[in-house]
Order: sequence, then structure tokens, then C-alpha cells
Amino acid sequence: MENEIKVGVVMGSDSDWPLVEKGCQVLEKFGVAYEKRVISAHRTPLEAIEYSKTAETRGLKVIIAAAGGAAHLGGVLASSTVLPVIGIPVAGGALNGLDALYATVQMPSGVPVATVAVGSAGPVNAALLAIQILGTADENLREKFKAYKAELAAKVAAANERIQS
Amino acid sequence: MENEIKVGVVMGSDSDWPLVEKGCQVLEKFGVAYEKRVISAHRTPLEAIEYSKTAETRGLKVIIAAAGGAAHLGGVLASSTVLPVIGIPVAGGALNGLDALYATVQMPSGVPVATVAVGSAGPVNAALLAIQILGTADENLREKFKAYKAELAAKVAAANERIQS
Amino acid sequence: MENEIKVGVVMGSDSDWPLVEKGCQVLEKFGVAYEKRVISAHRTPLEAIEYSKTAETRGLKVIIAAAGGAAHLGGVLASSTVLPVIGIPVAGGALNGLDALYATVQMPSGVPVATVAVGSAGPVNAALLAIQILGTADENLREKFKAYKAELAAKVAAANERIQS
Amino acid sequence: MENEIKVGVVMGSDSDWPLVEKGCQVLEKFGVAYEKRVISAHRTPLEAIEYSKTAETRGLKVIIAAAGGAAHLGGVLASSTVLPVIGIPVAGGALNGLDALYATVQMPSGVPVATVAVGSAGPVNAALLAIQILGTADENLREKFKAYKAELAAKVAAANERIQS
Amino acid sequence: MENEIKVGVVMGSDSDWPLVEKGCQVLEKFGVAYEKRVISAHRTPLEAIEYSKTAETRGLKVIIAAAGGAAHLGGVLASSTVLPVIGIPVAGGALNGLDALYATVQMPSGVPVATVAVGSAGPVNAALLAIQILGTADENLREKFKAYKAELAAKVAAANERIQS
Amino acid sequence: MENEIKVGVVMGSDSDWPLVEKGCQVLEKFGVAYEKRVISAHRTPLEAIEYSKTAETRGLKVIIAAAGGAAHLGGVLASSTVLPVIGIPVAGGALNGLDALYATVQMPSGVPVATVAVGSAGPVNAALLAIQILGTADENLREKFKAYKAELAAKVAAANERIQS
Amino acid sequence: MENEIKVGVVMGSDSDWPLVEKGCQVLEKFGVAYEKRVISAHRTPLEAIEYSKTAETRGLKVIIAAAGGAAHLGGVLASSTVLPVIGIPVAGGALNGLDALYATVQMPSGVPVATVAVGSAGPVNAALLAIQILGTADENLREKFKAYKAELAAKVAAANERIQS
Amino acid sequence: MENEIKVGVVMGSDSDWPLVEKGCQVLEKFGVAYEKRVISAHRTPLEAIEYSKTAETRGLKVIIAAAGGAAHLGGVLASSTVLPVIGIPVAGGALNGLDALYATVQMPSGVPVATVAVGSAGPVNAALLAIQILGTADENLREKFKAYKAELAAKVAAANERIQS
Repeated sequence: MENEIKVGVVMGSDSDWPLVEKGCQVLEKFGVAYEKRVISAHRTPLEAIEYSKTAETRGLKVIIAAAGGAAHLGGVLASSTVLPVIGIPVAGGALNGLDALYATVQMPSGVPVATVAVGSAGPVNAALLAIQILGTADENLREKFKAYKAELAAKVAAANERIQS
Repeated sequence: MENEIKVGVVMGSDSDWPLVEKGCQVLEKFGVAYEKRVISAHRTPLEAIEYSKTAETRGLKVIIAAAGGAAHLGGVLASSTVLPVIGIPVAGGALNGLDALYATVQMPSGVPVATVAVGSAGPVNAALLAIQILGTADENLREKFKAYKAELAAKVAAANERIQS
Repeated sequence: MENEIKVGVVMGSDSDWPLVEKGCQVLEKFGVAYEKRVISAHRTPLEAIEYSKTAETRGLKVIIAAAGGAAHLGGVLASSTVLPVIGIPVAGGALNGLDALYATVQMPSGVPVATVAVGSAGPVNAALLAIQILGTADENLREKFKAYKAELAAKVAAANERIQS
Repeated sequence: MENEIKVGVVMGSDSDWPLVEKGCQVLEKFGVAYEKRVISAHRTPLEAIEYSKTAETRGLKVIIAAAGGAAHLGGVLASSTVLPVIGIPVAGGALNGLDALYATVQMPSGVPVATVAVGSAGPVNAALLAIQILGTADENLREKFKAYKAELAAKVAAANERIQS
Repeated sequence: MENEIKVGVVMGSDSDWPLVEKGCQVLEKFGVAYEKRVISAHRTPLEAIEYSKTAETRGLKVIIAAAGGAAHLGGVLASSTVLPVIGIPVAGGALNGLDALYATVQMPSGVPVATVAVGSAGPVNAALLAIQILGTADENLREKFKAYKAELAAKVAAANERIQS
Repeated sequence: MENEIKVGVVMGSDSDWPLVEKGCQVLEKFGVAYEKRVISAHRTPLEAIEYSKTAETRGLKVIIAAAGGAAHLGGVLASSTVLPVIGIPVAGGALNGLDALYATVQMPSGVPVATVAVGSAGPVNAALLAIQILGTADENLREKFKAYKAELAAKVAAANERIQS
Repeated sequence: MENEIKVGVVMGSDSDWPLVEKGCQVLEKFGVAYEKRVISAHRTPLEAIEYSKTAETRGLKVIIAAAGGAAHLGGVLASSTVLPVIGIPVAGGALNGLDALYATVQMPSGVPVATVAVGSAGPVNAALLAIQILGTADENLREKFKAYKAELAAKVAAANERIQS
Repeated sequence: MENEIKVGVVMGSDSDWPLVEKGCQVLEKFGVAYEKRVISAHRTPLEAIEYSKTAETRGLKVIIAAAGGAAHLGGVLASSTVLPVIGIPVAGGALNGLDALYATVQMPSGVPVATVAVGSAGPVNAALLAIQILGTADENLREKFKAYKAELAAKVAAANERIQS
């Protein structure tokens, strides 16, 4: 059933919500049910591990993790589940997200985190990647994604029209 | 059937093969059938697009792309498929893979590439991520992954023993 | 004839137009006819390839491509034409254009993209470079460029006057 | 009693041992008892948390953590103890330790990791910092540290002599 | 006695005070007495050395140093004391604190500076690290730190509640 | 006539020759006559300016400049000619060519340098770009370039064959 | 005589004047006569070379050059004089002055440019360095500099007073 | 008299000598007497301050300081003298001299360090800069420097000859 929660969206702080929300809107647009949580890799580490340890049995298929700075959230979640974990490096702070990008993507052999762009494209692409992953076993989602790609192409065509005038 | 090819492994040059091979060995260890191709985003662009355009109907579920420098391969493949595309930024050259990392991960909104680490962990983690993705619809693979995680933990314990003596 | 369109100016998004427009104004100042297009390497890849594949027969001599982030547009266009392609890395986003610079300039052997500065000098210099390229076979343009250089020098002299008082 | 183990030295892999050993030799030189462990933040996360959770009651006063890449070990240990945690970013890999440095030092508010230099000075300085911390309550250690500083100064004087001839 | 000054907080300029003050508030919250000083490594070098040279005999246990740019303050203080020195790299300027981070953390073998994050987490974490250091010999402080960690976890739980509605 | 020298290849030092030679071999392969010079922007500045000032009247169409470090050669040559100048940032030294890349590409508005990749692809792509520029007025060269692109594609296909076995 | 012009202050654009002016104010404060010029390494290269070629005979002792981006001005001036040239890398643009810093400081063997900080300290320190250089043959200037250093120290003491209350 | 020691060459460690020696050879070539010292900003801070405090009265005119990592030596020396201080950032270590470059050049307003290139050009250019500084009051040195520049130009011409054959 589509209504079952398939994606867990976790963020390190509720200050990340305005960014992460853009990804959740994409999930909603595709009709993918999700749950959202604030869990901190450093302030509530056992909750983080518990969350990903139980994710599979609770029916989740994919976990999305958003964090900034020494962004360990994706890695901590990935440590305790066999589900794919998608990491959104959150920009901000003195190093402007370069710290978050490196801390998310440079995971050691054995424990991948699927990293998307640091910056505003991040949460949207994390959601789309989750949908693509679910789509590997869901033709309906794949069809929706094709329609989405057609929409993107149509927007480019429309933008092209706009600059001609 | 497990013997059907589910993962397409694409690299920009056969000089990437010694690195990429480490990921293919992981796929083999998990019994996941794959095909491998040398396709260049810049030298054979239509082949690249054709490859990903037909990937879904040929039964592929995930595409892995490895490229260095201005690493466009993952992005070009992702442009023409609804399958998840995993990008391996290949280190090397004057900028030591930082160019490949940025060119792979900083994809625009709408077209994600799931990026793994630049460096030796990259191909192994790309393969593991592909397995996790396939595992979202394959309990057998998830169980194998749990065993793999147990193996990793056992190796850490063994390493701990070694440094005690 | 000077009125034939000789330069194709392509950008990945119409949000790049305010920047790219500064280059188009330079082309106009030199009386070089151009066309402008929004084409996305990732959202409309076949259009991108089609555009550069047909550019030569449509009479274009130079292509200018502006893109940000994992800026593949210049590379994709260069993959499918023998015309010189000039890349403008568009600043912006968390990595402030460093991603666009690396993704534009670090092209593999065989497929050059002539890269200009990331930042506001980029589109102006892309246009000037296109004019210099056309000028290799057009003495009139070379003379105009000499006048332009004299203007630049005069502006420096005027600026010098200004700070003396 | 000085013989009680006061410092826990943790590393993510036994491949870090040749580097970390240089710090342990410093601890030995100062007569500070320590234990060493291979524990992985990503492969054995619960062991990591368990280790730091119990560190205080087992009598430890300081924890030293060495890790490379997306170096989460210091952060994970710091999440679960009130003891000071010293992080050694281990160089190596494509990003040459810059990833490890950022992932170790850029900890969020509330959970500090005392970071020392990436490179060969790291483990020595981690050990010295642990000794300084123990020294805040141990005049004997402080005196030893003064002697150590005098030694360093003497070595500089000797080096000065050497280059005169 | 808790009222004795145990921590010396030094900054290179009073323009650093609004940042450093956040750390001092943490010290106050934990009831740790401190003194604060503006001393410049480059403008008042002898005062800097004198300050750290006499710190131990004046009863200080830990020194915190905040500086930006070619941030030498932590290193200069560390050169002349056996007390642990915590360095806060102050962001700002053209290099946005990367200069301060490198100049603080990359100390040579023999003279560690315990470096915390560049950015707003820095002064808070410097204060917490000082408290952890004092806590190695003060069970009362350790208990307070446990309560602080519980507070942090409670705030995460509250943030989680907030985003659910 | 094709035998007239159309491309000037300038390098800052003869230590750049082994790298630059790879570009000259490409020019030879395409039958494009060139001259080569060692001229230093900093050691022989007037020669540099004289060289580019007279380039047009001597029949040159394109100038290629290779330099490392604070690579000013391309910019100095571009200052004194209306011909297109292609810059090859030479890797090497402590900053590994990042200094050369920035010093070549970040030219101010009015004086473009067409920058190619830092690293081994640089000289080859500089030569190819020069050929593309000459090709804008030379159909024969454009046809040769098409054959070259076909060769590149054939090499990719051959590489693909190799990794299948 | 002190009234003779001893320092030439050159900038690439009058947009640099608000920054450079801060250095000129320092020269005035010390009673060092200077001249100021807008000269562009790329737009008026011969004027740049002419300026530094004649500087010595016109009585100048030191040249200060401020430029941003691919900042060649210092290097071009240094190429044509035996006077010491001080380079101010001007921040701004997408790379925020890192390009200007590298292009100024990484001069090749034989042609030094004495580089000061990128950012607001740059012009002040360039002026002070010029004064120190003149001071090597002018005891009066050295005495003034000592007074200046005492002022700096007094300001630190005053800042210290301010934060105590 | 030329035989009086005019330049003090200070390095942080005798491991810097092979690099620094190249600068000393330049001083010798120009007949400039110098003294050399190993003094550490962190291990012998008072010696460092004492050295620069007494430099002027001992007849020195310029100080050259070479250091790597968190390279404070130039800054510490500059803090305590009115003589110009030239800083050589020494490459090496995990950050490959970027740390040394930033720590040397980013000095705060009031205390300049004249920074030369990180890498092999550094010590040669530091020596040449010292000679230029001395040359501001020594016509003989200026003449020697002109001869040196002519030598450099002749070497470029010779290199040009070499690559023609």
C-alpha cells in the first residue's frame, strides 16, 4: 500500500526544517508517505542508532538524513541499518557546508551514505533519489518520475521562450 | 531471478577499471549480476544517453558511474533514466579528485546522483549502496547485508585483538 | 555577412540570464549576431546534443555555455560539435562557483571547453573571446577589438585622473 | 595511583596504529597508563557508545580518538561521555586529511572534541594534551611537562648549534 | 573552592568579545569562575607570554584563547605554560576563518592547542571543554555536565515535537 | 597556405616543455604549423609584450601560453594582442597548480584568457582548442576534427571491448 | 628630504581606492610622501612596465600594488624594477580573494612580491611594511614606528579595560 | 661596510635548513652578510622575542623567518621589532603548506610579515627581497640586482634556444 510509511526523514536540528521541508514536499507530490524526526547524532546518539536499527522492521525502505558541520547523522544512521541512507549536507556556518559535504560523503569502506548536493538542490534531490530507489520495485512510481522529468523538460522549454522575448 | 543483470557499471575510461573492479567484486560476493561498460560522457555522448535511456527496459535497476576530472558521466546517465544513478568520483590528476567530487555531487535540482566517497572506498561503497537499493525489495539481499555488517564488526574485533599484542 | 548568426549563447536556466545578458550586450556592441537558448544538460540532454550537433551546419562559429553547480553544459555541448565551446562557470550556491569552475575547466583530453572567469567578468570575457575567435578570420572585428582595447586603456587613464583629485 | 589506566586511546582501524603508537610512546614516557582499542564509529557503533558511556566509571579521565575520512569516531565517543575527548584527524586518502580535520573539529554546540593537528604532530600532541589535562590535578605531571618543555628548548638550541657548523 | 578563578579567557581583540561572551555564559552557568583578558599575540607579545607563564601559579587550570586571521594567540600562550590551552578560531575576513582554523590547529609536535570549531559553536564548546577538563578532578562538575547533556537531549526531543505539528 | 605558422606556443620555462610538447604533437598531427618560444612574463616582460604585440602582423592566429605558480604569462600576452590567447595552467609546486589555474582563469573583464584543464589534459586540449578556432574559417580542419572525434569514440569502444574479456 | 615622494601606490582599478586609501592614510600619518596611480597590468601593460622601469630614477624606494582576481599587477611591476614591490591581494569576486592571494604570492624564483594579508588588514600592513623598509635607512622613521607599536599596545590595554566593565 | 651582518635568517627547525640554505646562497652571491639561527616560536618563545627585540641594535636591517604548519615564527618576530620581517611559508605536512601560507600572510593590522611563495621559490625570493630592501639605501646592491635580472633574462633566452633544437 502506498500509504504505509516508506521513508524516514531525519534531521539534526529543527533549524534544518525549512530546508528539509522542500524535500518532504517532493515526497508528498509523488504520494510517498514519510515520517520526519529530529534526532541528533551527538546529543541523542542512542535514539539515532535505535531509529535506524528498527527502521527495517517498522517497514521503512529508505532513510534521509540532513545535517551540517561535522555532519555525522547520515553515517551514524547508516551504521545500524541495511537500508540505503541518503545524506543531505546542510550548508551554513563558517565553512559554508564544505565540512558537512566531506563528513557525509567520505564514509569508510563498508558503510555508504548516498550523498546529494550541498545547497538548495540537496533536499529535493534526496527526496527524488528516495523515490527512484522505491521505484526500482514500483512501476507506478517510475511512471510518475517519467512524468516529472517531462515536467522539468517543459519548464526548460518555457524558460527558453521567456528569454526570447 | 537473481541471475538477471540488475546493475549496470559504467566507467569513463578503462584506466578506471582497476578501481571499479573492487566494486564489481563486492557485487559478485553478494551474487548480484551486473554488466560493465566503458562509455564516455564526452567522447561517446549518445551512447551514454542511449545506455541509460534503455536501462530500465533491459531490466536494470541501478546504474553505477565512475569518472574523474570534470566528471559528467553520472549526470549524463541520470539525465536519461528514472533509475537511481550512483556516482563514484575518481581521484587523480592535479586537483586530486576534488573536481570529480564536486562535478558528481553538485547536481541541479531534479536530477540526483547518489555520490559516494572519492578515494578507494568509493567503488566498494557504490556496490554496497546498489545492493542496499536492490535490498529494499529483496529480503534475501538484506539478510546477506546483515551478515556482511557482522563480518565488518568481526574484523574490527580482530583488529583490536591484533593491536593488543 | 555580419548579420548571420555566428554565436550561440546557451544557458542552463533562465535564472542565469541577468548574468549572461552582460555578455550578449558585448556581442551587440561589436555587431556580432547571436542566438540565445535555455537548454539544460540534465533536464533536456538530447536537445543539448542536438543543438551542438547541428550548430555548424546552421552557420554558427562559436558556442558559449553558462552553467552553475556540477556545470556539465559546456562539456555536453563540446561533446557533439567541432566548434569551439566557451564555458562560463556561474557562481552561486554553497560552493560559490568553485564547483562550476572545476566542472567546466577540467575537461578530459580530447574535448576542450575554453573556460573564462567565474564571477561577473565571465560573460563579458566569454563574449570577447568569441569575438577574438571570429576575428581570426575577420579583420574588421580585429580592428574593432583594437578600438575596444584603446577604450579600456582610456578608462584606466580616466580612473587615474579621478583618484588624483 | 599512577598505574591506574587514565587514558583510553581509540582508533578506527588498526591501520592507524603506526601513527597512534607515537602518541602512546609519549604517554609511556610520562608514566601515564593507558589502554588502546580498535573501535569503529560505523562498523561497531554500539561498542563505541558503550566504550565512552562506561569510561568514567572504569576510571578513565581522558579519551583520545584517531580516525580518517568522514572521521566520526571522536564525535561518537564525545556524544556519550562527560570526559574530555581529544580527536586526531588522520591524514590520507584523496582529500589528504582535510575531510578528517573538518569532521573532527566542526562539532556542534554542546559536544566538543578537542582537535589536534592533522599530520604527524597529531598523535604526539594528543598525548601531550591528555597529560596536560591530567596535570591540572597532578603537580607531578606538571613538573614532568616542564622538564619536557625544557628538553624541547634544548633540542632547538642543539639544532641551532648544528646549523652553525 | 569553586569561586577561585580556574579558567583564563583571552582574546586578541575586544571585537571578539560578542562571540567569546557566549562561552563565558556557559562557564557562569556551570559556576566556574573565570577571568577575561584582551591580549594580542602580535601587539603585546610579552604580556601574552607573561600571562601564560604565571597562569599556573595564579591558580588557573585551563586557558581559552580566541583569535582570527593568522591566529597565533593560542600557540603563543601554549608556548609558555604547562596548562592545557583551548583555541577558538574566529571566523571572519576574506578567508572566513579557514586561516584561523589552520593557524590554531596545526601546531607543531610538542605544543598542542586543543582546537574547537570555527563558527558560532566554537566559544560554547571551548567553555564546555574547559569544564570537562576541570571535571576530570571534580565529580560535582561531571554531574552538572551530565545534567547539561540531558538538557541537550530534551531540547532535541522538544524540537522533534515541534516539527510534528 | 597551411604551412604558414598560425599558432604561437609560449611557455614560461623550458621545464614546461615535456608537458607542452604533448600539445605540439597534436598540432603536428593536424598539420597546423606553429612556433614555440620560452618567454617569461616576469623575467622577460618586454619580450612577452613584444611577442604578442607583433603576433597578428606576423600572421599568427592563436597564442597558447603555459605557465605555473602565479601564472601571469597568458594574461600578459592577452594584454597586448587582439588574438585569442589560450592558457594552460601548469600543475606542480606546493599548491599543485591551483595557483596557476586561478591566476590564468580569473582574468578581469576586458582581457579573456581561454583556460583549459590543469593537469595532463591541458596541453592536448589547448592544441585542440586552437585547431577548433582555426577551424572556424577552415573547413578542412573541421573535417579533420570530426575524424579525430570519431577516433576518440573508436578508442572508447575498443576500451569497452578490452574490459569485457 | 622627507617631502620627496618615496612610495608609489598603484592599483588596478579605482574601485580599489576605498581599500587602498586606508594604507595611504598610514603613509600620511608617518609623514611619508607617496604618489598614487591607477594602472592596469592587463589594460595598460606598457604603462605598468614603464612605471616600474622609471621608478628608481624618479626617486621612488618602494612600490605598493593592489589588485584582485588574477592579480598580476604586483608581478608585472616587479618584473621591471629592482625596487621592492609590496602586493596587496584584493578580496572580492566569487573566489573571495583566494585567486588574488595565490596570484600575488606564488611568484617564481627571481622576482619576489612581498605579499600582505588579503582583507582589510592588507593596505594598512602594506603601508607599514613600506615604512619599515624606508626605516632601514631612516632612524627617524624607526622611532616613529616604535611609537606606533606602543600605540597599538596601548589600544590593546584599553580594549582590555573595556571588556572588564 | 658590507661585511657587517645585515640580515638575520631564522628557521623553526634545522629540518628547514636544506630549503633555507638556497636563500642563504643568494645572499652570499650578492655579498650580503647574514647570520642564521634555529629559534622556535613555540618551543623557545622568549628567545624568539629577544632575538627580534635586539635585532636593530645589533645592526640587522632585515629578518627572514621560515616556518611550516601553524607558522607563527614570522609573526612572533615581527611583534617585537620595527625591522621588516620576511616570512617563508614552508610546505610539507598534510596540508602541504597551505597552513603555513595562511598563518604567515594573514597577519593582523599593525604587524606585517612580507610573505613570499610557499614552495621552492620561497627562500630564494626571500633573500632577493631582503637584498631589494637593503638596496633602497645601497646603489651598489641595486646595480648588482640589475645584473641579476639580466642574468635571469639571459637564462630565458638560452632556454628558448634549447627548445628550438
